[in-house]
Amino acid sequence: MAETTDDRLRLLIERVERLEEEKKGISDDIRDVYNEAKAVGYDVKIMRQIVRLRKMKPDDRKEMEMVLDTYKSALGLG
Amino acid sequence: MAETTDDRLRLLIERVERLEEEKKGISDDIRDVYNEAKAVGYDVKIMRQIVRLRKMKPDDRKEMEMVLDTYKSALGLG
Repeated sequence: MAETTDDRLRLLIERVERLEEEKKGISDDIRDVYNEAKAVGYDVKIMRQIVRLRKMKPDDRKEMEMVLDTYKSALGLG
Repeated sequence: MAETTDDRLRLLIERVERLEEEKKGISDDIRDVYNEAKAVGYDVKIMRQIVRLRKMKPDDRKEMEMVLDTYKSALGLG
C-alpha cells in the first residue's frame, strides 16, 4: 500500500514536472519572438504593454486609461 | 511600406498572444494536477516545495538545506 501511494505521488510530481518543462519551452518561444521583434527595430517594452492592453476588455481599458490620465495630471506628468 | 510594417508588428503580437494562450493552458493543466493530488489527500504546498527541490542540483540543494538549518537554529526554530 505504501508503495502504491509512493508511486502515485511520484507520478503526480512527474506530471507537474513535464508540464513545467513545456511551460518553460513556451516562455522561451515568447522570448524568441520578442528578440526577433527587437532585431527588426520594435520596442519590446511597448510590445509587452500592447499585449497587456489587448487582453483587457475595451471598457476596462478605457477606464484604466482615464484613471491613468487623472493620476498623470495630478502629478504634473500631463 | 507602412502597411507592411504594421502587418509585421501585428503578426508578431499575434504570435506572442497565441503562445501566451498555450502557456495559460499549461498553467491550468498544472493546477488540475495539483487539484487531483489534493483530492486524493496530498498537501499541495509541500508538493510545490518538492518540485522546487527536485529542480535544484543536489549540491545546491544540500547547501541550501545547511544554510536553512543554520538560520533555523539561530532563530530558535530547531
